[in-house]
Amino acid sequence: METQRYKLLIAYDGFDYSGWQIQPGLKTIQGELENCFQRLTGMPVKVHGSGRTDQGVHACGQVAHIDLPDRPGRERIIQAANAILPSDIRLLKAWPAAATFHARRDAVSKEYRYLIWNFSIMPPFLFRYRTHIRQPLDVSAMQKCAALLTGKNDFAAFTANPKRIVESTVRELLSLRVRRRGHEITIAARSEGFLYRMVRSLAGLLIRVGIGDLPWSEAKGILEQKKRTAVVPTAPPQGLFLWRVYYAE
Amino acid sequence: METQRYKLLIAYDGFDYSGWQIQPGLKTIQGELENCFQRLTGMPVKVHGSGRTDQGVHACGQVAHIDLPDRPGRERIIQAANAILPSDIRLLKAWPAAATFHARRDAVSKEYRYLIWNFSIMPPFLFRYRTHIRQPLDVSAMQKCAALLTGKNDFAAFTANPKRIVESTVRELLSLRVRRRGHEITIAARSEGFLYRMVRSLAGLLIRVGIGDLPWSEAKGILEQKKRTAVVPTAPPQGLFLWRVYYAE
Repeated sequence: METQRYKLLIAYDGFDYSGWQIQPGLKTIQGELENCFQRLTGMPVKVHGSGRTDQGVHACGQVAHIDLPDRPGRERIIQAANAILPSDIRLLKAWPAAATFHARRDAVSKEYRYLIWNFSIMPPFLFRYRTHIRQPLDVSAMQKCAALLTGKNDFAAFTANPKRIVESTVRELLSLRVRRRGHEITIAARSEGFLYRMVRSLAGLLIRVGIGDLPWSEAKGILEQKKRTAVVPTAPPQGLFLWRVYYAE
Repeated sequence: METQRYKLLIAYDGFDYSGWQIQPGLKTIQGELENCFQRLTGMPVKVHGSGRTDQGVHACGQVAHIDLPDRPGRERIIQAANAILPSDIRLLKAWPAAATFHARRDAVSKEYRYLIWNFSIMPPFLFRYRTHIRQPLDVSAMQKCAALLTGKNDFAAFTANPKRIVESTVRELLSLRVRRRGHEITIAARSEGFLYRMVRSLAGLLIRVGIGDLPWSEAKGILEQKKRTAVVPTAPPQGLFLWRVYYAE
């Protein structure tokens, strides 16, 4: 059957989901999307994401691709999909793409943002979307620490993956920026490729530095150890957003 | 026993609640607060709100009063209460108040805000906190309509209350403002006293005017009818916030 590949831009509130990847018996983002396109087309549709996000992690700009059969109304895919999808998953854009386009393999880099609410009380409208840190964070120390972590490094100390075999833990962190706006602190990380739980590990260390638990200059020594230790905690998932996936075109 | 009255400032996400007022077997804001203070003090504590909010309605600035017995740690009430309350209810402030202070009777005026997301797609992070209107709203027409509704009027056409006996449906609407910021439209209403579902009824009419379903000039005729008709719909609850309660002091 004639099919057309589509590139999709997807946003989701991951708070109530067991992550992106489809798993039997669990509520997942990929599972909801595949269910939606199956209902739309009357046949199974595989949704290929740019990558997985963990349980509780959000996305403003996840990218995926699908192949849709030639059905009436295919051009109204956004409206049709959003009428079926739950309110916490939205299809933002859909473009016809080349049959060779691949959401994961063609991704050039990704930006994640980790959002912290840095005030004694967490607003009741934000607890799903921010990590709450009560102690005042020293953003200047966090920025100095972030500068040490930026660049091409072995990030073995910043991944948590005993099960998977990863050929190399060297990655280039293109940028790692920390900024405050009122009570909100944003950690923005961009890389061609992140290791498993790398952004949450970077955020975990930066938070320790920000609360004065660890000097910012420790970052170099931690990188040099090239192994995960208790010094680097994994920050909780609800502050993390897959912000944007970059492609060459 | 010696007690101290406290004035409380409370915020809540009402999406998952059956409104403010305590009701047996239902999840309510007042119920959660009374349960919290009972756990804190070891005795029943009545929470007197400035007024009720309906099922699904939020508050940024609900005010209440309580009488707390003289217990150790009473001065740390905010921290202690927020450690017990669910994440979607937060105690923002607590002040010792005169024994005569009454959250409802002493309230001078209230401001409600009705928030609309006016774009084809509702962000997945906002569906609990905004009413979604896809068609572009004519804010200028809504503002003209709002001007006609402002002032002292019989708002019988803007309340939905067949059960309660209300002595008069005349109220002074001190201000009713409509403004757009990007995709967000805010309707802000202030009055010394609102009728049951009055703000959602005002929002319902303004939305009809905004989508071009009704000329803005109809507002005067609707007021003059002095009875509720199908012309005025009740806008859904998730866009409504009790924004601020004003007191003389």
